[in-house]
Amino acid sequence: MELLGIEVVSVAPEEVRLKAVVRLEHLNLHGTAHGGFVYTLADAAFALISNARARAVATSARIDYFRPLVPGDEVMAVARPLNVGKRLATYAVEVFCEHRRVAHFVGTVYHLEER
Amino acid sequence: MELLGIEVVSVAPEEVRLKAVVRLEHLNLHGTAHGGFVYTLADAAFALISNARARAVATSARIDYFRPLVPGDEVMAVARPLNVGKRLATYAVEVFCEHRRVAHFVGTVYHLEER
Amino acid sequence: MELLGIEVVSVAPEEVRLKAVVRLEHLNLHGTAHGGFVYTLADAAFALISNARARAVATSARIDYFRPLVPGDEVMAVARPLNVGKRLATYAVEVFCEHRRVAHFVGTVYHLEER
Amino acid sequence: MELLGIEVVSVAPEEVRLKAVVRLEHLNLHGTAHGGFVYTLADAAFALISNARARAVATSARIDYFRPLVPGDEVMAVARPLNVGKRLATYAVEVFCEHRRVAHFVGTVYHLEER
Repeated sequence: MELLGIEVVSVAPEEVRLKAVVRLEHLNLHGTAHGGFVYTLADAAFALISNARARAVATSARIDYFRPLVPGDEVMAVARPLNVGKRLATYAVEVFCEHRRVAHFVGTVYHLEER
Repeated sequence: MELLGIEVVSVAPEEVRLKAVVRLEHLNLHGTAHGGFVYTLADAAFALISNARARAVATSARIDYFRPLVPGDEVMAVARPLNVGKRLATYAVEVFCEHRRVAHFVGTVYHLEER
Repeated sequence: MELLGIEVVSVAPEEVRLKAVVRLEHLNLHGTAHGGFVYTLADAAFALISNARARAVATSARIDYFRPLVPGDEVMAVARPLNVGKRLATYAVEVFCEHRRVAHFVGTVYHLEER
Repeated sequence: MELLGIEVVSVAPEEVRLKAVVRLEHLNLHGTAHGGFVYTLADAAFALISNARARAVATSARIDYFRPLVPGDEVMAVARPLNVGKRLATYAVEVFCEHRRVAHFVGTVYHLEER
């Protein structure tokens, strides 16, 4: 997470907030942040919230990318639980840049011990 | 891609192959490679194959993670087209470690110019 | 939609609400409503909201199923836009049964004419 | 399944094949088969293959739609395992119409008893 310059804003079982700033090294061939930058930020928020309750491993994730980012853009990821069961839990992560939605991420984990 | 140590094995419009080795810095809290490592490898293969035909931006991706990886594991990602239309194209990326499937990735791009 | 007994509660560009009641003919081998029942309800809400703005065809959907339903359960689907672009638009549909989340659906459409 | 006129071509733990013909009642507002038709066919193949090994409930599915179908089109769905674990299993279903890929479906189930 240090490599991406991710900053932890807040961590709680019901909400995790992380932020990061797009830098030159995050750019793809088109001069915008590559999807991996946004995915890694969302995935980090997902890892923090899903491990707040139990030891959890990711089983799947889907991300939708809505708009390009350019260097200097400050991006906020907000993770919240959609459903937490005994063995499986699913979280949504919304990624915003200045109140505009940049990406929507949904990820599922498997709990290594039953909750 | 240098950060992850990704090696390009082959690139063609019908198939892209990349490989990488799991290193200590790729590990998560559980001592296995974090999902972001596998995602980044699959995403890099997806970016290469989807831009081989046209200027393309990712609109969505789904990844399913099947088994944990440990340091030293050599991982191969194989990307192939599922459907290539004028404006949208979808690719599957299979990730293997010694012939066992590690992850399955499906991603869609939007072509910036109509093909 | 008549076959499933889907009732339109409200339709607006920012929110569509549909409801349906699980009946005996919706059950799978395990005696609970099969996934197709919940998917079809969510998909109908997605079709209504995405076509409220433009002629649109679905390009992808993901659904996560959280809990089983039994006959007599009344289910509400609430669709809202996540992002509406010129050519692509993505919507989330939340499915509830008595205020408990039953499923989360994310679908993307392609607009047949640019908006 | 009778409502959709789905025909079981073959069922085995490594592959399930189903087929169906698009009929007038499957059409959407645009005069092509609505996504629910293709989803239901893929989902039926997924249900058959995932329950061939163990009692299984669907936890998530993603479908990508590639081309429209018109009445009279004969569609084949081919389901195969991507990964079968103790508790979770993931399957891909390819949907074809005359050797052209119509849709790609990936679904995950949870086994009610450990395999």
